[in-house]
Amino acid sequence: MFESAEIGRAIDKATFDTEEPLLREALLEAQYALREQGRFAVIILINGIEGAGKGETVKLLNEWMDPRLIQVSTFDQQTDEELARPAAWRYWRQLPPKGRIGIFFGNWYSQLLHGRVHGELKKEQLSQGIVGALGLEQMLCNEGTLIFKFWFHLSKKQMKARLRSLRDDPLHSWRLSPLDWQQSKTYDKFVRVGEQVLRRTSRDYAPWYIVEGVDACYRSLTVGRILLEGLQAALRDTTRRAPLPHTTPLMTSIDQRSLLDSLDMSLALPKADYREQLTREQARLSRLMRDKRMRRHALVAVFEGNDAAGKGGAIRRVAAALDPRQYRIVPVAAPTEEERAQPYLWRFWRHIPARGKFTVFDRSWYGRVLVERVEGFCEPSDWLRAYGEINDFEEQLSNAGVVLVKFWLAIDQDTQLARFQEREANPVKRFKITEEDWRNREKWPQYRDAVGDMVDRTSTQMAPWTLVEANDKPFARVKVLRTLNDALEMAFAKADKDG
Amino acid sequence: MFESAEIGRAIDKATFDTEEPLLREALLEAQYALREQGRFAVIILINGIEGAGKGETVKLLNEWMDPRLIQVSTFDQQTDEELARPAAWRYWRQLPPKGRIGIFFGNWYSQLLHGRVHGELKKEQLSQGIVGALGLEQMLCNEGTLIFKFWFHLSKKQMKARLRSLRDDPLHSWRLSPLDWQQSKTYDKFVRVGEQVLRRTSRDYAPWYIVEGVDACYRSLTVGRILLEGLQAALRDTTRRAPLPHTTPLMTSIDQRSLLDSLDMSLALPKADYREQLTREQARLSRLMRDKRMRRHALVAVFEGNDAAGKGGAIRRVAAALDPRQYRIVPVAAPTEEERAQPYLWRFWRHIPARGKFTVFDRSWYGRVLVERVEGFCEPSDWLRAYGEINDFEEQLSNAGVVLVKFWLAIDQDTQLARFQEREANPVKRFKITEEDWRNREKWPQYRDAVGDMVDRTSTQMAPWTLVEANDKPFARVKVLRTLNDALEMAFAKADKDG
Repeated sequence: MFESAEIGRAIDKATFDTEEPLLREALLEAQYALREQGRFAVIILINGIEGAGKGETVKLLNEWMDPRLIQVSTFDQQTDEELARPAAWRYWRQLPPKGRIGIFFGNWYSQLLHGRVHGELKKEQLSQGIVGALGLEQMLCNEGTLIFKFWFHLSKKQMKARLRSLRDDPLHSWRLSPLDWQQSKTYDKFVRVGEQVLRRTSRDYAPWYIVEGVDACYRSLTVGRILLEGLQAALRDTTRRAPLPHTTPLMTSIDQRSLLDSLDMSLALPKADYREQLTREQARLSRLMRDKRMRRHALVAVFEGNDAAGKGGAIRRVAAALDPRQYRIVPVAAPTEEERAQPYLWRFWRHIPARGKFTVFDRSWYGRVLVERVEGFCEPSDWLRAYGEINDFEEQLSNAGVVLVKFWLAIDQDTQLARFQEREANPVKRFKITEEDWRNREKWPQYRDAVGDMVDRTSTQMAPWTLVEANDKPFARVKVLRTLNDALEMAFAKADKDG
Repeated sequence: MFESAEIGRAIDKATFDTEEPLLREALLEAQYALREQGRFAVIILINGIEGAGKGETVKLLNEWMDPRLIQVSTFDQQTDEELARPAAWRYWRQLPPKGRIGIFFGNWYSQLLHGRVHGELKKEQLSQGIVGALGLEQMLCNEGTLIFKFWFHLSKKQMKARLRSLRDDPLHSWRLSPLDWQQSKTYDKFVRVGEQVLRRTSRDYAPWYIVEGVDACYRSLTVGRILLEGLQAALRDTTRRAPLPHTTPLMTSIDQRSLLDSLDMSLALPKADYREQLTREQARLSRLMRDKRMRRHALVAVFEGNDAAGKGGAIRRVAAALDPRQYRIVPVAAPTEEERAQPYLWRFWRHIPARGKFTVFDRSWYGRVLVERVEGFCEPSDWLRAYGEINDFEEQLSNAGVVLVKFWLAIDQDTQLARFQEREANPVKRFKITEEDWRNREKWPQYRDAVGDMVDRTSTQMAPWTLVEANDKPFARVKVLRTLNDALEMAFAKADKDG
């Protein structure tokens, strides 16, 4: 979930200096239109890692916009008055009226996160708190509030470096957060709980935006752009009393970088190593699938990837290791008539394996946020709410003991071109290449964005995405097999531990 | 929540025989239109008390409509296949396709209810299950499913009588439910858990309909009508891909009876008794409010009622018992400009008392489902979702130790007329009566329905409605005071017990 906010996103000062005045002017204009219309209020929630620029961003937003129309609320210790009343009272009394912007710094999420990280909240209380937060936000949206939720992120390494530099800077040292942030244990816990909270509370009507916090220029411009586009979209849609669900790009990659770009596409495996490792991993998979402990689990593997990335070949190498009675390959193409008459996830639910079994999905439920999004086969509202629905779906699988492994097989554009041409030249493989493949290729940037958003929003501890560098087929195949094996072993070990 | 399904609703056989063929024809027509449009599916959930006519109703629906387009699913013991997969799989595989009706008899709610009643589910697991059910239903609605949730109800007395008569009837005895239903403990638990589940899962997109089950004619016609109106509304609205939230009347009182009609409006208190009881209850309230245990609680009283029902007088008798520093009276009229710029509940949240204090709301947040509903001051979607929002709100208050007492002061139309005329004749009281009062009076039936729905949907264990027979002012005033005192005493006793 935080993958693409740990790749060192940055933009140069010159670009920032060109863009900032334009953004500023547009934000001010939107702010006045918001007041003019008086149709909805805006709430900005500020959360995330200590040292990732939360405070600086709030300060900047007040500089950029008219601070008289912004109301910043911090919620630290509860006051006596607040302690004497129901917990939500403190938030209600700070709600911005229609036409205004309220920035909630240290909000219901901070309370949940800190409470859980420091062991004051039990698991069930966290779940209750999440349900409460969602209820509050849904009500606010229905009553005319546009909610932006920002998570400012740093990798553990980045966080440590940032805290050190803040400490050494006399101008900023007052801002230093509690010491325990420097302990890596707190960071790990915080991020783990954070991922859980974000996963469950990122909904179409109030999604989270995860912003990498290292580079101030990138961070500021990103937040400003997301706000601006969200505001403008809501202001345009005057037919509705309450704002629409967010339809802004989920991740404005203003630095032109994406998670996929951060892969090392030169990774390859020499032929001799390939033979040996392939055999070893296949034997391992075969052994694991026959392990007694497999009876309490099922295995689901999802294969997505660029056209010609080698999904079929990788799947064949997996299947080769197995008894055909134990696995099933489900190729996912356009839905049948019967499937179209059902809720979207129905055609995947029907193929969920029983315990002890393994289902390979050759393309999957992620079609909705990939091809259907890019080709416009569904409404934006459909794919926007799909992230949450998919996470709920996968949580149900995971809770039932299903081990879920998701692969994105990535190749670069040159490799794809070469493979397309090779396919066309080869009479045996010609059936594999169609006009559609060439058309898809033209939408490379849109697919790249869709993949980035997909990984950001659905890579979770219970069902992480594995990005596979697939320019070299042998490397990709072995990585796929090894990932499957590692996932099974981890699940078995966890089950052993939990008794 | 079940109040108005325990008043012995019935219609005579002759009416039934006249209405049935018409209803039947209309239902069939709607069913074919549903198939024709193929735009959405229908799911009917059947739940409730044993012996309340669940099975008979399902049978009847199959007789009335074309059974080839209805698919009845029962979910008893899980099969081996189901046990080997995530819990929701069994429901997914039975989903009706678009254009069809699926009746789910023994669904996710039955599992939750039975699990909790028989102690197999912990409180937290029930909460998790409720969240899961809501998530599933919301997704289904978004994907084009119209969901009807029926709760067939019997009072404890009715249930016992019904089970007895079934047992004695050789034709029906095979239908006899497990013996433990005849134990009143199971009934009490089931109804308590049921109320909690219904309260949390009655949402605008999938509300519960509570149907009194004693009289077969009433029960059948009620279910048929709700289905028909819901279906027709969804079929009409062809601009939307998915059906609208339900906008059918929440409670079709086809027997022309309502909870309010079941009050004994002749109740009265002789003058001497009044003096004595008033003094006693006022002293009791004064003592309770000074009780040390009050420091851990707050008290909120809501006064709603017909115009001229005597709210003001009752409130004055309450206030007379108290130290003015301890209570506050909040008269609720049209919202101010500042209040209109906020979410609906904001203007009530701001007046929530601190611990140790008492707030009297002279009219309240129930305005949304009373005057705003009847006068059309808000959209149907607003007041339909308000029931759930209000229950959430009151749950938050209750969890924070707020004792919540809600009064509906009921008078009959003759009494109201007499009081209006008296007010007009009396120069001191003339200010109390306006043109609006006379206009409201013309909407007596609409208000009666709105009050019935309100009580059905928001009278809960944590915040029950007290209907006050207010034709006789002395009687009403004493009942109000006594109810407040009983509620406080109960809360103190509970707190003592919980330590």
